[in-house]
Amino acid sequence: MSQAAYAAVDWGTSSFRLWLMNPAGDVLAERRSAEGMMAAAKAGFAAVLQSHLDAVSAAENLPVVICGMAGARQGWVEAGYIDTPAHLAAILQRAVPVSGQSRDIRILPGIAQRDPAAPDVMRGEETQLLGALGAEGEALVCMPGTHSKWAQVRGGTVERFTTFMTGELFSAVSQATILSLAVANADEAVDTAAFKSAVSAAFAAPASAANLLFQVRSGQLLFGGGPAAAREKISGTLIGLELAAGLAGHSSVRGVTLVASGRLQELYLSAFATLSVAVQSIDSDDAVRCGLALAAKTIWKL
Amino acid sequence: MSQAAYAAVDWGTSSFRLWLMNPAGDVLAERRSAEGMMAAAKAGFAAVLQSHLDAVSAAENLPVVICGMAGARQGWVEAGYIDTPAHLAAILQRAVPVSGQSRDIRILPGIAQRDPAAPDVMRGEETQLLGALGAEGEALVCMPGTHSKWAQVRGGTVERFTTFMTGELFSAVSQATILSLAVANADEAVDTAAFKSAVSAAFAAPASAANLLFQVRSGQLLFGGGPAAAREKISGTLIGLELAAGLAGHSSVRGVTLVASGRLQELYLSAFATLSVAVQSIDSDDAVRCGLALAAKTIWKL
Repeated sequence: MSQAAYAAVDWGTSSFRLWLMNPAGDVLAERRSAEGMMAAAKAGFAAVLQSHLDAVSAAENLPVVICGMAGARQGWVEAGYIDTPAHLAAILQRAVPVSGQSRDIRILPGIAQRDPAAPDVMRGEETQLLGALGAEGEALVCMPGTHSKWAQVRGGTVERFTTFMTGELFSAVSQATILSLAVANADEAVDTAAFKSAVSAAFAAPASAANLLFQVRSGQLLFGGGPAAAREKISGTLIGLELAAGLAGHSSVRGVTLVASGRLQELYLSAFATLSVAVQSIDSDDAVRCGLALAAKTIWKL
Repeated sequence: MSQAAYAAVDWGTSSFRLWLMNPAGDVLAERRSAEGMMAAAKAGFAAVLQSHLDAVSAAENLPVVICGMAGARQGWVEAGYIDTPAHLAAILQRAVPVSGQSRDIRILPGIAQRDPAAPDVMRGEETQLLGALGAEGEALVCMPGTHSKWAQVRGGTVERFTTFMTGELFSAVSQATILSLAVANADEAVDTAAFKSAVSAAFAAPASAANLLFQVRSGQLLFGGGPAAAREKISGTLIGLELAAGLAGHSSVRGVTLVASGRLQELYLSAFATLSVAVQSIDSDDAVRCGLALAAKTIWKL
């Protein structure tokens, strides 16, 4: 393997990931921490970045390309937005340099949908899209998470996208409502049947979402059932609700490109299978790293 | 006014209300406190009740009729459930006496829907229904709250009912998600236009609920807008979602009976007006007191 050419950083709200890359796009070293935007805003973005670069013995002049919330207004340097319809290649052209640093640091912009009837923003997912689809990609893409994003991409252009608060609703509903009693002390056992039937129910009757959630509690009261099944029902209800909107108007035959990893990847694959929707699955870590590598190649002519 | 004949108590999860009543059903005195089931389970139900009876100088042998969560398994004495289809008059026949007390105390049962496909429970709302409709009533009834209840009543029989976690979702979403930033420092000013347009949007596209909620944040980021408008949008989205399911399959001409009071009454009246649904509005405090009075008359042959 050749020497490090640059560092690629995915800097989210609550997580930080850094990869030390060679010119061919191979990973030489990796760092992961919880020093996301929230933590870094207090500790200092430059200091957090430098500590991770030191940990992988990066050269003093190694350039760094960053995507995600580090480019938000509350982040390190505001990197603005490309407006929809947004060509993914435009992201590569509009990286914002961080001034006053000894090394060359660039932050990629996000994408904004300035439609008063459907305002939306993304930061980080545009780089996943670029990595997953390339600059000429075409797909309906589902990127699950705290704030799940669905994007319609044609000819490398993000035409529309939609954010669903699915992950955050799951946390809030599980922790801050009466359903906290239903899921208390749940172990890690996965109740696939409970999950799938909840996905189907919410997909078929999305208007009933606030009732289907209550049924997690009332069903336990009247018919019993453990906390793990309750957790899967909450998760399935919220994912089924998201899929009902995300898939609306789309042919299940053409399918969806899922960009996810780990537990979320498993859950969404199971949900799509329940609804007989064809899925092309791409690892989200690979996608964002690939997108950052494309940006590095363009910016520094690697 | 004649002498007190009994005390009527609506004992909810987080609130306690007591009315001192004469035989004609007039209110002689009223008590309200936050000593609901949760607080009373610690302080002792008998002690809490006695303190309020003392405060209104109730006679030692004054009987007491109670509805609500005091009859839950975690309450004072479990009062069980009448199963659907449940005739409202059956509630009056199935009051459970609290043993070991110097006075005659009865707790009314709740209603359970033991349908595995739509399990549901109510405690307290059955007494509101009885008071609002009488023992032979017929209506589609909406009872908003932390856990909103919709009941289909025909000939005095609760055929089906459905609970929506609308109020609790509003609290959880406003306090425990990114939307807490959008509503921070909201004053009491009511943005009726924001509320109504959110009701319409969620009613028209209930599957998009988790996106409409995110738009509260993204709309503020891209187009500005204050925290009061953000709060009304969250409220309107969740109420519009509830109405989409509650009104499904019902003719808007036949209308809905709304049993509510205060701010919730105003919000739901506004939501129904937005959707051009005819509403008969009944004060929920009057309804529950009237239901308890009917129970007292039956139990003690007043």
